[in-house]
Amino acid sequence: MAKDKKLVESITSMQEDFAQWYTDVVKKAELIDYSSVKGCMIIKPAGYALWENIQKELDRRFKETGVQNVYMPLFIPESLLNKEKDHVEGFAPEVAWVTHGGQSELQEKLCVRPTSETLFCDFYKNDIQSYRDLPKVYNQWCSVVRWEKETRPFLRSREFLWQEGHTAHADAKEAQERTEQMLEVYAKFCEEVLAIPVICGQKTEKEKFAGAEATYTIEALMHDGKALQSGTSHNFGDGFAKAFGIQYTDTNNQLQYVHQTSWGLSTRIIGAIIMVHGDDSGLVLPPAIAPTQVMVVPIQQQKEGVLEKANELYETLKADFRVKVDDSEKSPGWKFAEQEMRGIPVRIEIGPKDIEKGQCVLVRRDTREKYQTALSDVTAELDRLLKTIQADMFERAKAHRDSHISDASDYSEFKEALEKKPGFIRGMWCGEQACEDKIKEETAATSRCMPFEQAQISDVCVCCGKPAKKLVFWGKAY
Amino acid sequence: MAKDKKLVESITSMQEDFAQWYTDVVKKAELIDYSSVKGCMIIKPAGYALWENIQKELDRRFKETGVQNVYMPLFIPESLLNKEKDHVEGFAPEVAWVTHGGQSELQEKLCVRPTSETLFCDFYKNDIQSYRDLPKVYNQWCSVVRWEKETRPFLRSREFLWQEGHTAHADAKEAQERTEQMLEVYAKFCEEVLAIPVICGQKTEKEKFAGAEATYTIEALMHDGKALQSGTSHNFGDGFAKAFGIQYTDTNNQLQYVHQTSWGLSTRIIGAIIMVHGDDSGLVLPPAIAPTQVMVVPIQQQKEGVLEKANELYETLKADFRVKVDDSEKSPGWKFAEQEMRGIPVRIEIGPKDIEKGQCVLVRRDTREKYQTALSDVTAELDRLLKTIQADMFERAKAHRDSHISDASDYSEFKEALEKKPGFIRGMWCGEQACEDKIKEETAATSRCMPFEQAQISDVCVCCGKPAKKLVFWGKAY
Repeated sequence: MAKDKKLVESITSMQEDFAQWYTDVVKKAELIDYSSVKGCMIIKPAGYALWENIQKELDRRFKETGVQNVYMPLFIPESLLNKEKDHVEGFAPEVAWVTHGGQSELQEKLCVRPTSETLFCDFYKNDIQSYRDLPKVYNQWCSVVRWEKETRPFLRSREFLWQEGHTAHADAKEAQERTEQMLEVYAKFCEEVLAIPVICGQKTEKEKFAGAEATYTIEALMHDGKALQSGTSHNFGDGFAKAFGIQYTDTNNQLQYVHQTSWGLSTRIIGAIIMVHGDDSGLVLPPAIAPTQVMVVPIQQQKEGVLEKANELYETLKADFRVKVDDSEKSPGWKFAEQEMRGIPVRIEIGPKDIEKGQCVLVRRDTREKYQTALSDVTAELDRLLKTIQADMFERAKAHRDSHISDASDYSEFKEALEKKPGFIRGMWCGEQACEDKIKEETAATSRCMPFEQAQISDVCVCCGKPAKKLVFWGKAY
Repeated sequence: MAKDKKLVESITSMQEDFAQWYTDVVKKAELIDYSSVKGCMIIKPAGYALWENIQKELDRRFKETGVQNVYMPLFIPESLLNKEKDHVEGFAPEVAWVTHGGQSELQEKLCVRPTSETLFCDFYKNDIQSYRDLPKVYNQWCSVVRWEKETRPFLRSREFLWQEGHTAHADAKEAQERTEQMLEVYAKFCEEVLAIPVICGQKTEKEKFAGAEATYTIEALMHDGKALQSGTSHNFGDGFAKAFGIQYTDTNNQLQYVHQTSWGLSTRIIGAIIMVHGDDSGLVLPPAIAPTQVMVVPIQQQKEGVLEKANELYETLKADFRVKVDDSEKSPGWKFAEQEMRGIPVRIEIGPKDIEKGQCVLVRRDTREKYQTALSDVTAELDRLLKTIQADMFERAKAHRDSHISDASDYSEFKEALEKKPGFIRGMWCGEQACEDKIKEETAATSRCMPFEQAQISDVCVCCGKPAKKLVFWGKAY
């Protein structure tokens, strides 16, 4: 048992040090490893399988809305990055520059894409001629590079994986609809698949994307009360089109600028899965996204018939579930601890006594509840149980999130709430960046979003006391 | 009709200029576009959909053999690239260097991965401790960068997409088996899915991968008689393990070096699909990989009931086939030319007269044969037809390939064959690099591989006349 305990005891508890708990989980659940390039992570099989499932599910949802996948170059010439003023100001300070190719210095240096608006614009400029060429609804799955100073696995790394959608439309209305549609795709994906409840809303001017007219976001609340921006969708209006000269002839043969959007979701979301659902024994994965949904653990597997029965169970289940058998030499206790660390939603224990009774034991990862189940019912019971876990995980995350939303009507309430109950703070805002700056400087909280569901919880700005314009969700964020 | 013809006539014929025909097809079939970064291509929806199907099918076959996917960083520190002598000599001359991150110069420059052996080795060095950690059978899907001087879409570009598998094993035997197993996966994939026959064999010392003990290859023959190396699998022995210090304790508690392999297949294979199957009307895609297998083209679609019937047909077929309806305003002739250019395997024509007779017309892309088919039989007929096309395409490609293999017993025969019937030349070889060098210098042909199926077609080297050791396939190559 000493050995079994070691795996679990070597995680710091959440209560003691949340940041260390997070680092322990990503390592011990074998999601990532550190590489010899500072700030770049190695995504190990368990982490990458999670990303593959995210890709598969999200890509399917994208394609249902008419998205087509493409691939743009990794490099952006400096002159191209410089074309849209706000955009370059936002990104130039944090890009990596290629200056040499082969044996010689490049005539123009190339940045490794931090995001690909400029590449898509350069392409659309030639590819779009007529209204018949619109809309363009393209997306790419790729890695991007941002030269961050402080890095943390999944949450902030110098290279990360993501998808970036880039669309071009004939008019402003269609661009706005697409911006909102993709935010909704993200929100539904998070809630239905990842069991993560999100607040949907618009970013303030201060927090919007470099070059965007408007940025929309889904914001999730982590277990420690910090917010995580989990996906964003931007409406560019015709700003990029004017900077790059992307025009089309409309049905009246008049030249018009296109209206554009972009939207992205990254491996950051894996950080959200960990910090919304995890516990002191490790990861807890929602069944809909778990690479392995069920681990069959034979008990006293050296006894005759046990392994055979475990394998039989596997054969019965494999058509309907992502199931594995742990028939390694490790002790059952060690196997349990590993299954828990890796967040596999259900463990099935089967030993000689179970076999005698024609049953097995299903154990939930999230609540640790155990259910004795007749072997003849196992498919139906497991199906029911996985659905229950998925639903319960969402409800639990939502209850936690909701219980960590405080309303503040003035600045002292705001600061008190932030101190006493870390989470989202709902507070009215006058619309001035000065108040956002002051709040950030004095409390480290930022405006997370102006939620789509607005309410007038007070008449005055939570910071300056002047007349309020918008309800804002505030919070400390990753 | 003038407009319809334009699309087709604007392709150069193969006969006239094969290289220009290729360039025309990749552009007109909308597979790629050129980007503003020299030598980097934009893969458009039709090209990327092809790559997605290749990925899906190959990834499934990989996973059946126990492969797990991971993701390694994009960057390799210079010191890491330098660790294995042969490897760095092979790659350093053609890498892109990142020298600046954010606002400051890097302490150590980073190359953008041209291939990831060094990163995997650096990772395995820590990740592998005991025989229990073996084997590691990892793969990643990513892009790599090689600073080529001359570039051509898919065939040779500065950035390309690929998969690279990297494995570590306890002993030499297992590594050799994995090397051969993955070559076989490639060969079967090419033959069964892409309808491309390949020659499997081993590369000579001169042609093997930088740092490998042995390199195996699948070689395909293009329509112009040139060979294309379409996938490679390398056995590294313990060379990299010794350079990087990757050791494990075996069952006797002795330290041992691991044995490693790597294997890769890239977007280059799309070039092979084009050049093996294409014709003067454009692409011809094998049904198993075609993003759209069937295009329904309504004839006289303005007439009552035609579009409805075309859509009905679509509804009938969509569960079993990748099918689309072209209900655009273009003329049928234009639609036919587009469907042919894009290589969609089957077109279904349906007009008022067909509807009257309860039939439609199936047209094969590869042979242009037409089949009148009762609407009630269309699912079964289409299924049969697509299978026939797939099989016929392979047989045709194989017949072409086989009719372009010549045997040469001396150097004059060799040169004559190369002149008169471009293709593979089978010729015995003494084993000396001097002969390979001479042949390459004087004829531009290279040793493609020493085929697994050896034969003694003569006793002496085709170049120097000294005693022969191996049968070699020679040819000019992309």
